[in-house]
Amino acid sequence: MEANRPTSVLIVGGVAAGMSAAARARRLDEHARITVVERGDHVSFANCGLPYHVGGDIDDADDLIVHTPETLRAALGIDVRTRHEAVALDTVARTLTVRTDAGTRLLHSDALILAPGARAVRPPIPGLDSPRVRTLRTVEDAAALRAAADDGARTALVIGAGFIGVETAESLARRGMDVSLVDTAPHPLPPLDGDIAHHVAAELVRLGVDLRTGTAVARITPGADRDTATLTDGTTVEADMIVLATGTVPDTAVFEDAGIACERGAIVVDEHGRTSAPGAWAVGDAAQATDPVTGARRPVALAGPTNRAGRLVADDIMRPDTARPLPVPIGTAIAQVGDLTVALTGANHRDLAASGTGFHTVHLHPKQHAGYFPGAATIHLAVHFRAGDGRLLGAQAVGADGVDKRIDVLATALRAGLAVGDLIDLDLAYAPPYSQAKDPVNIAGLVGSNVLDGTLRLWHAHDLDAVLAEALVLDVRTRAEYDAGHLDAAMLVPHTELRERVGEIRTATAGRPVRVLCESGVRSNLAHRILAQAGFDSAALSGGMMTLRAALGGRLAAVAH
Amino acid sequence: MEANRPTSVLIVGGVAAGMSAAARARRLDEHARITVVERGDHVSFANCGLPYHVGGDIDDADDLIVHTPETLRAALGIDVRTRHEAVALDTVARTLTVRTDAGTRLLHSDALILAPGARAVRPPIPGLDSPRVRTLRTVEDAAALRAAADDGARTALVIGAGFIGVETAESLARRGMDVSLVDTAPHPLPPLDGDIAHHVAAELVRLGVDLRTGTAVARITPGADRDTATLTDGTTVEADMIVLATGTVPDTAVFEDAGIACERGAIVVDEHGRTSAPGAWAVGDAAQATDPVTGARRPVALAGPTNRAGRLVADDIMRPDTARPLPVPIGTAIAQVGDLTVALTGANHRDLAASGTGFHTVHLHPKQHAGYFPGAATIHLAVHFRAGDGRLLGAQAVGADGVDKRIDVLATALRAGLAVGDLIDLDLAYAPPYSQAKDPVNIAGLVGSNVLDGTLRLWHAHDLDAVLAEALVLDVRTRAEYDAGHLDAAMLVPHTELRERVGEIRTATAGRPVRVLCESGVRSNLAHRILAQAGFDSAALSGGMMTLRAALGGRLAAVAH
Repeated sequence: MEANRPTSVLIVGGVAAGMSAAARARRLDEHARITVVERGDHVSFANCGLPYHVGGDIDDADDLIVHTPETLRAALGIDVRTRHEAVALDTVARTLTVRTDAGTRLLHSDALILAPGARAVRPPIPGLDSPRVRTLRTVEDAAALRAAADDGARTALVIGAGFIGVETAESLARRGMDVSLVDTAPHPLPPLDGDIAHHVAAELVRLGVDLRTGTAVARITPGADRDTATLTDGTTVEADMIVLATGTVPDTAVFEDAGIACERGAIVVDEHGRTSAPGAWAVGDAAQATDPVTGARRPVALAGPTNRAGRLVADDIMRPDTARPLPVPIGTAIAQVGDLTVALTGANHRDLAASGTGFHTVHLHPKQHAGYFPGAATIHLAVHFRAGDGRLLGAQAVGADGVDKRIDVLATALRAGLAVGDLIDLDLAYAPPYSQAKDPVNIAGLVGSNVLDGTLRLWHAHDLDAVLAEALVLDVRTRAEYDAGHLDAAMLVPHTELRERVGEIRTATAGRPVRVLCESGVRSNLAHRILAQAGFDSAALSGGMMTLRAALGGRLAAVAH
Repeated sequence: MEANRPTSVLIVGGVAAGMSAAARARRLDEHARITVVERGDHVSFANCGLPYHVGGDIDDADDLIVHTPETLRAALGIDVRTRHEAVALDTVARTLTVRTDAGTRLLHSDALILAPGARAVRPPIPGLDSPRVRTLRTVEDAAALRAAADDGARTALVIGAGFIGVETAESLARRGMDVSLVDTAPHPLPPLDGDIAHHVAAELVRLGVDLRTGTAVARITPGADRDTATLTDGTTVEADMIVLATGTVPDTAVFEDAGIACERGAIVVDEHGRTSAPGAWAVGDAAQATDPVTGARRPVALAGPTNRAGRLVADDIMRPDTARPLPVPIGTAIAQVGDLTVALTGANHRDLAASGTGFHTVHLHPKQHAGYFPGAATIHLAVHFRAGDGRLLGAQAVGADGVDKRIDVLATALRAGLAVGDLIDLDLAYAPPYSQAKDPVNIAGLVGSNVLDGTLRLWHAHDLDAVLAEALVLDVRTRAEYDAGHLDAAMLVPHTELRERVGEIRTATAGRPVRVLCESGVRSNLAHRILAQAGFDSAALSGGMMTLRAALGGRLAAVAH
């Protein structure tokens, strides 16, 4: 046994981070007294599965409970106490006051791990205390919402279109309910770039969800049969059940009161999860973290990093000499929305633009596997990388198949510090049912590498007004594609006719730059190479009309037909 | 235009590498004369799709033809000539003699790219010239085999259980034919580790394939209705059609005769694909490569690396100052076999053992997504990493879902030079339909990291004889699991009883080591930690009984019931 190893470890919070820490501590030390106190009725439950119980994909709520105090005692010899709520902490005496059904108790330990998690944000909406309003944080919440749905609720309002809100809304819509989804953001899943979120919004609408973005719930008026929500845009939504999913805040008041340093409610920790109080660590949704790309400081409420951080905190307690620092989460997230999967990793366009980092973005629409193999489906993919050295900064994707794989590959590359050009060289598994000889990730590398070295110059959907004002827009698609919808200002020259018609284009530019576009960006790259070598000031639209339509949506109607 | 840029490029071979090189050369240089000569009837066809046309997944052979000479001329201004076979090369005069339907012609170019590909190995089997025997290298081959199947062929023999052979056999079996598959190797897909291949063999048998491993075809006797193959084990197989898929060799005799340096038929190239002849490059299945892990020198016949290498060769020709070297392929491959996917990346166990590299292997059997979410399926996963620094060396996986994703993540990590412990920190996308809070790849990192730092000590299936001779085997599963099948020598102590029964186990060991096992390796890790801390010479079976059964198969019957 090492000299300074604690003989007792007390853990506040028994879900993800706390239970990972407890299990690892036991595996490293068979003799320590390890106690877990959890305010709720359950430990070690699958909180990410809650929306799927509400919707019925997971029928039995018991399936969400991974371990019980009894199984944890039997397997790991851990003393797990539910319905034990931490109400005070003395960091000098190292005692925690816990409220239980049998009154308060005082617990002492050598090492304390704070993993209290987060609680739901409750916006100041009049009427939010209606019994028809519930958050979705616990197994009991999920069971109650499920019971309401089973008992004949036909209409639901979901407030907040983040991951939990979208998953709940789509889950309820798939079981046949009339669902309204409200968010102040301009699109669902606010961390997404707009052109990616466009596909999510369209899929929600296809599922029958009444999607209300850019507005908020002003008040809730309870009624005899159902509640009525009045939105800030003046419209109303009637609902038999209301799910409040407007985000979470760290649940740390008790510890902040005890003098542990916090930052906007999040417990400040060092690279090993140590708090400002000796012998006290913090981990999970309540602990502060720094965004590796933008430097933003905020807790990262994601199950994966949280679980793994719990283990590293136990390492730091039980064998501090060899413990690795906690890695900075890069914020990979994913959701199933109807027939689509949407996922992102790293920084998004908005945060990158705000951070002042010089960066490029490439947009692609490759098929997830060989186009000639049955079931080929488009992946809409955006990859952000640093100007100059090309280091990967973030990526987003949406599509019917193969999205999770590409985002996981990109998350791995991002974590490894690869540059966009390194994506070319990844030997990804290829057979016709799984990929293309050049995987979508390889293609992102090829395009990004061309951008970095100047072989390809891009213009973007958000440049459209300037392009229309100052350049010749050249559409190099086929006549049939053009006729099905095009920018009013665009000159049509199919890419196969381009070599013969360079003179005609030169005349049409009248000295202006030429801005090329096609459907997805492939043919405009070929055209750009011809034009650039012929001396034109040329650039190709990143992601082509597919990205333009997704980025601009209805606004495109003013300049296209 | 750069000073030394060639004004003409001649490319031999118009399928994968050759056509990639041609397209890139054009994008970099609008003015060069670019000519492609191809011996066959088609260029740019999807050779990886051929087995799926034979089996019917891809109904129309035309779907396999990605481009034609006409579309390539229109889009890229490339002069593509099919039925043009290179028959002689003068490396000094830089002239290539080509045989065409209209006689021979002499072509000259500044730069020559040799991408002739490989031809099928034809073993010296008497009767192999039967008209019922075909290889599967061209669209015509696939169409002929498909026609034979459509015309009433009921029985097929596939000689060679590599990727093409297995894909063809499973494709024919799925369309209802009686298929025999013969290979001299002990299991199908010889690059696989035995415990992974076990699941492929079982799936082939489940599909009705008559799998004959460890034997070869001695002779083929043509008959009136069908041919009869006699195997070296004395058995016979009757077949209406026979597919020869015993591998390929570089098709380079013409170039070797011209004095271009070759190594066992493969063209020797430098890191930019340059051959021994000035102005001549080689790329694709005909070019030599060096295995990054084992140092073995062999061509890598994989579509992905080949396509990308073609592009880099064009870079070296058109802008040599900035061209990147060709990356060394790490050999990622994948196949669909019935309901399973099997994939591998990097080095396998056999090659690592032969190379003398010190390495560890971890075996896992995680679910591909949350166990409580519908459709959870096991992935059998093996990861090899270097002793000492933990650098990833290779990985293999098989299962019904999520295999391609995990191998692609591991291939990315391997290419990036990550160590097994780095896999812990990968922020992979988690929601219940896609993964677990700890993804299978994270878990491989956790287990591997435990092995590297000594927290976990493993024993392996191949150690079984020594373990049975020298150690107490401790089975820590439940009584019910034990009763359903166990090693005869094993003592049963369920892991939940272990802490109370340590004294009993100490007595049973009589001073011998204790070798723990469970079903998948999870509980034996917990048990090992208890025993190791209690002073036992303990180790846990990597992958548990699941790996033991897969590795030993029928041989287990002698020591287990």
